[in-house]
Amino acid sequence: MKKLLIGFVLLAFQLNLMAQKSENFIQYVNPLIGTQKMGHTFPGATVPFGSVQLSPDTDQQPHNISGKYNKDAYKYCAGYNYDDSTIVGFSHTHFSGTGHSDLGDFLIMPTVGELNLEPGTKDDPKSGFRSKFSHSTEIAEPNYYKVLLEDDEILAEMTTTTRVGVHQYTFPESENSHIILDLMHGIYNYDDKNVWTFVRVENDHTIVGYRQTNGWARTRTVYFAMEFSKPFKNYGFKNYEKQDYKGFWRKFDQTKNFPEAAGKQIRAYFDFTTKKDEKIQVKFALSPVSTEGALANLRTETPDWNFEKIKKQGQDEWNRELGKIAVTAENKGDLVNFYTALYHTFLSPTVYMDADGKYKGLDQNVHTAKNFTNYTTFSLWDTYRALHPFFNIVQPKRNREMVNSMLAHYDQSVHKMLPVWSHYANENWCMIGYHSVSVISDAIVKGNIEGVDANKALDAMANTARTKYYDGLEFYMKLGYVPEDKNSSSVSKTLEYAYDDWAIAQAAQKLNRKEIYDEFSKRSENWRNVYDSSVGFMRPKMSDGKFREKFDALQTHDQGFIEGNAWNYSLYVPHNPDAMIEKMGGKVKFEKYMDELFTMNLPDEFFAETEDITREGIIGGYVHGNEPAHHAAYLYNWTNAPHKTQERVRMILKHQYKPTPDGLGGNDDCGQMSAWFLFSTLGFYPVAPGNDQYSLGSPAIKTAILKLENGKTLSIEAQNQSDKNVYVSKVLLNGKAIDRRYITHSEIMNGGKLVFEMRDKPKL
Amino acid sequence: MKKLLIGFVLLAFQLNLMAQKSENFIQYVNPLIGTQKMGHTFPGATVPFGSVQLSPDTDQQPHNISGKYNKDAYKYCAGYNYDDSTIVGFSHTHFSGTGHSDLGDFLIMPTVGELNLEPGTKDDPKSGFRSKFSHSTEIAEPNYYKVLLEDDEILAEMTTTTRVGVHQYTFPESENSHIILDLMHGIYNYDDKNVWTFVRVENDHTIVGYRQTNGWARTRTVYFAMEFSKPFKNYGFKNYEKQDYKGFWRKFDQTKNFPEAAGKQIRAYFDFTTKKDEKIQVKFALSPVSTEGALANLRTETPDWNFEKIKKQGQDEWNRELGKIAVTAENKGDLVNFYTALYHTFLSPTVYMDADGKYKGLDQNVHTAKNFTNYTTFSLWDTYRALHPFFNIVQPKRNREMVNSMLAHYDQSVHKMLPVWSHYANENWCMIGYHSVSVISDAIVKGNIEGVDANKALDAMANTARTKYYDGLEFYMKLGYVPEDKNSSSVSKTLEYAYDDWAIAQAAQKLNRKEIYDEFSKRSENWRNVYDSSVGFMRPKMSDGKFREKFDALQTHDQGFIEGNAWNYSLYVPHNPDAMIEKMGGKVKFEKYMDELFTMNLPDEFFAETEDITREGIIGGYVHGNEPAHHAAYLYNWTNAPHKTQERVRMILKHQYKPTPDGLGGNDDCGQMSAWFLFSTLGFYPVAPGNDQYSLGSPAIKTAILKLENGKTLSIEAQNQSDKNVYVSKVLLNGKAIDRRYITHSEIMNGGKLVFEMRDKPKL
Repeated sequence: MKKLLIGFVLLAFQLNLMAQKSENFIQYVNPLIGTQKMGHTFPGATVPFGSVQLSPDTDQQPHNISGKYNKDAYKYCAGYNYDDSTIVGFSHTHFSGTGHSDLGDFLIMPTVGELNLEPGTKDDPKSGFRSKFSHSTEIAEPNYYKVLLEDDEILAEMTTTTRVGVHQYTFPESENSHIILDLMHGIYNYDDKNVWTFVRVENDHTIVGYRQTNGWARTRTVYFAMEFSKPFKNYGFKNYEKQDYKGFWRKFDQTKNFPEAAGKQIRAYFDFTTKKDEKIQVKFALSPVSTEGALANLRTETPDWNFEKIKKQGQDEWNRELGKIAVTAENKGDLVNFYTALYHTFLSPTVYMDADGKYKGLDQNVHTAKNFTNYTTFSLWDTYRALHPFFNIVQPKRNREMVNSMLAHYDQSVHKMLPVWSHYANENWCMIGYHSVSVISDAIVKGNIEGVDANKALDAMANTARTKYYDGLEFYMKLGYVPEDKNSSSVSKTLEYAYDDWAIAQAAQKLNRKEIYDEFSKRSENWRNVYDSSVGFMRPKMSDGKFREKFDALQTHDQGFIEGNAWNYSLYVPHNPDAMIEKMGGKVKFEKYMDELFTMNLPDEFFAETEDITREGIIGGYVHGNEPAHHAAYLYNWTNAPHKTQERVRMILKHQYKPTPDGLGGNDDCGQMSAWFLFSTLGFYPVAPGNDQYSLGSPAIKTAILKLENGKTLSIEAQNQSDKNVYVSKVLLNGKAIDRRYITHSEIMNGGKLVFEMRDKPKL
Repeated sequence: MKKLLIGFVLLAFQLNLMAQKSENFIQYVNPLIGTQKMGHTFPGATVPFGSVQLSPDTDQQPHNISGKYNKDAYKYCAGYNYDDSTIVGFSHTHFSGTGHSDLGDFLIMPTVGELNLEPGTKDDPKSGFRSKFSHSTEIAEPNYYKVLLEDDEILAEMTTTTRVGVHQYTFPESENSHIILDLMHGIYNYDDKNVWTFVRVENDHTIVGYRQTNGWARTRTVYFAMEFSKPFKNYGFKNYEKQDYKGFWRKFDQTKNFPEAAGKQIRAYFDFTTKKDEKIQVKFALSPVSTEGALANLRTETPDWNFEKIKKQGQDEWNRELGKIAVTAENKGDLVNFYTALYHTFLSPTVYMDADGKYKGLDQNVHTAKNFTNYTTFSLWDTYRALHPFFNIVQPKRNREMVNSMLAHYDQSVHKMLPVWSHYANENWCMIGYHSVSVISDAIVKGNIEGVDANKALDAMANTARTKYYDGLEFYMKLGYVPEDKNSSSVSKTLEYAYDDWAIAQAAQKLNRKEIYDEFSKRSENWRNVYDSSVGFMRPKMSDGKFREKFDALQTHDQGFIEGNAWNYSLYVPHNPDAMIEKMGGKVKFEKYMDELFTMNLPDEFFAETEDITREGIIGGYVHGNEPAHHAAYLYNWTNAPHKTQERVRMILKHQYKPTPDGLGGNDDCGQMSAWFLFSTLGFYPVAPGNDQYSLGSPAIKTAILKLENGKTLSIEAQNQSDKNVYVSKVLLNGKAIDRRYITHSEIMNGGKLVFEMRDKPKL
């Protein structure tokens, strides 16, 4: 009893502490979460939605070697792997949580002693410029990263503005200090990835240039401007490419103090004499447009040399953004999980334009964003599910700008298609579906379209969904499904197209565009065509109208699905769970199906071949590490057992999100995994974006205050909530009981108080 | 006697005819002159100083193969060799007369029958899309080229505007007609030259894209927009590159009717059904900036489909430009020589900006030309000698714009240097010296600087000449010469630097900038440091101050000279012939030296190793095919035998310029060889640009009327001139005898009448 009392006092003290520090949200963010195993997050410095992600890379690996897939590459999707003990340098662009990768532009590394332009190997860091490091000297905060590079005893610190990375290196005394700029380094690098590099040394402290790569983005160019806080003594370039033809450039010694270099494989170095503990700062600005743009970004965003000020500016910005949801929770770990998830959702999409609004379009021409901020890095197959719906609540202005960015992409697309995966003025076509339509429909249906031409957007959605040569669409339009013998992953495609079509119809309905509504409402029923009642699963169908004979509901590989098996994907009718449940045999049978999904034992062999499904991301046969079943736990709300939604959601939250480097059960996928966490932690989830309802679950915080952009506030209180009290007995909105299993968008946006009464037993 | 009378009547009739047709100057232009042997001109269509040179290519050859020089490439500097019997296609960019090469962008070829995307070989044209052709069906006029492609019986016609090439193909009846767009083809092509290609098919008749190459210009990108007069039925791309990584583009069949392609080695085709004699036109616009710019250029310059109108517009423009000098001569061959030379001088530099003034700068950023037209293709080691001085008389406005283009280049140069060889937003560094200073000095001294910031220009000139790391300049500044053990071709460099320095000093004097005048006047004396009186030649000196032992005055290779030997280069003190002659032993001895130069027998071995010096370009030991001695014939004016200038000049004119495809004795070098011809034919030559005097020679026409831009007219009359009457007995300017061996720039520009009285014996 005494013990319990002490515990209670300690808890109260802790909660009080949490409340007092409520203005310091960044303390709860740990950017190292997800950097181990499959999270694919990066630990470095960035501001919310920043163009620059300045982060340590512990290695680089080619995605493939001579056309063959290289398994080791996957660990380095974000450049950094927590298990590594060396850092090869600090590069300026990183995706957060992707399952395929690119970027890693412009690696910088300080060294002391004899110049070595080779990166060296992980096993033998002394063989190159890389250095050993230890997590004990490592600090990762929003917009701040610090580590001791042990080989040469150089303290490295990083901070950023939207478009500028700022490095601060504290050197030992030496006449032989260097800062290396590696223009060959990259993420998912391979021999031919570097298409061209161009560099100019404008004066004794300024360098500009660009690099063009052919990677996940086929035609990507990033421009830069770099400034040192102190003039270098000497500098030089090394071109690692075999050059058959040098033209009349051969008249110069281009390796030392010659201010211009161009080619495919170039590293540069800059020499300094340093006093003990002398700090050298480097500003590194990026531009999607030109070196001129990069230099203007540098001058605009970092006019002076003040590392601490820039760090504070960015951290203040993080506090403002993170403060949009003020949460109290039972323990620090929950707060760390919450704010790190919130941090991860605010990393991408990323701003993709110069300070003056210029950006490179999909047509490779330079455009100027008028009345919106242009964004890139749209991993839409992931993020349409929860991230963009989350933005419609907590980042509505940005989400409108993202919609306008998608429409600009559409305007510039030769296919007249909205983005599938928008990637630095490229469409990388990753994954399936045309889920831009979901994001835009959700914004239209929820009325978050100020400054968006909604009718134009609807036309863009419809055109996108009618692109015959896209991924089996011609068959889908003709047959009502994608036939597996014509186009692989046919069931996943059919199901996702059907949902997307429903989303288009919802937007059309809202805009009174009957023809489009009718066309796509009809198409939205196509999910029915791939359900095989004889086996009780969605199943690949052939172009002759027969289901494919070969069928294994557990297997992921070559079963008509992508990143999921029949067990998970058969649940993918988010826009009409009632009809789906009926099709699957009614509520009782469906509940059993769901129970089996969450409790079965899925042997390793069934996911071993798929790189981003691992044991960690799986609960029973439910795969949380990939997205197709992210809405699944909420489907119990359509059965007689909604308490199982509450139970499963809490289980997933506990099981899949931990406040440790290895804490994420799967790729964070540009914030989708984190957005799932945030919605579920707050007690509701958007099962079908494009619908204004959020399915109710089980809130996992004590209280949360959402400060909405419309000036209103929504307070969420989970009374009596604990790890045991996961069941909701009552939901009250502004004091009135809600007698349904959802709340609506307008209820949220109108603010007020949402109370969940929690207990340890289901309300049956 | 009767015979003579008939001859006279015929001659009079012929002259009358010439005069009557004086408004049709283009009839005397034969673009095929120089397309055989060493002229390196192109026969295709272009407008004066046009950005597009749309011309047939008979083959392509790499400049080197695996780093080794490929001798066959030299024949294809302009893409076309008159000796060939097949045409591989028609490409849009060609240098005129260069001795090294690049370009050949965007080859188009029409075919009928089974599609073949291989170019085929010269020996077996049927193996690919190339075709046999015959000179008998070939017509080459200013801005018009026509030829029958015999393999498929397609008539090909070409015309242009400044930025748009217009093709007209007359097809036979076929359901299987094609137009191929070869994005791999290029001049001096080699495997890695294509850095990147990007193409979009915007609709059923419009294609846009760009190609980036690494050739003579290291980082060059040309953007295009292409439109067909008729929609194509189908189209496709073939990527010839081994692609290790295709990313998610693998989900598409990118080979047929897929509207986007990118990579390094791409060909495209467009299919048509054609009726008998159906004409399909293609407009092909270029831009240095963007596909958007190319499309705007296309719409601005060729708003409708009217091949004949576009052809006429360009030919009218040629008539206006060529009409700036109205000449009468003894026979048509002379007129053809004259107007073809005038044509060749008006081909480059080329306009390098979009219709709206935007262009890519040397810094790879996009700039807008304000109050000037931006030009590229400055082959300055050649053209400073006579082409730009010629422009100061007949194209003064354009020459001012060229000076402003050079200053823009300087502003954008990381080296803060004026152009050496300005090449599509690149400095290709070809040849030696910093002869921009000569061009600018000549303009300043001659007062042709309206709209030019002359003092800024002078600073640019001085800065350029002080660039220590440039080609031995640091040694030159320290020692007063370039030492051969430190930097090759040291004598040529020393001599040319000395002349350039003198040119800077002249501009400084004109602008009252005494410090610069003193600095560079002193440097201009450096030619003295490499004259070895013990051998009577300029001679390589070592850094220890001693002349190099190895010495051969006839040999070209490795003797301290470039594109010349000691015999020719020893004359290179154009700014101070008097002092040079004194140094070389006085007038009498010098006259003997000159006589020996022009009459010696130079064995083949002495020029066999230098690709652009051949028997054709040589008279005795005098090399006209290369530039260093272009002023040499005029040096007799500084001796007691000025008549030998008259004699030699006429001999060179006869010997080196003929109205036939093989008529040019050497590379036309972007108009320098032609400008030499024009000046000499008119009777005077600028021995030292930067000096306002033109050395008098022997006019080779009957009459010439120069219509100057200032509204004045200079009439030149060569009384009694004939192939025999090459000696000048008297020169009268506006009726007053000129008692000196030069006329001045202001005398020319003030207009009036310049009469040469000619006879068949020297006036001794």
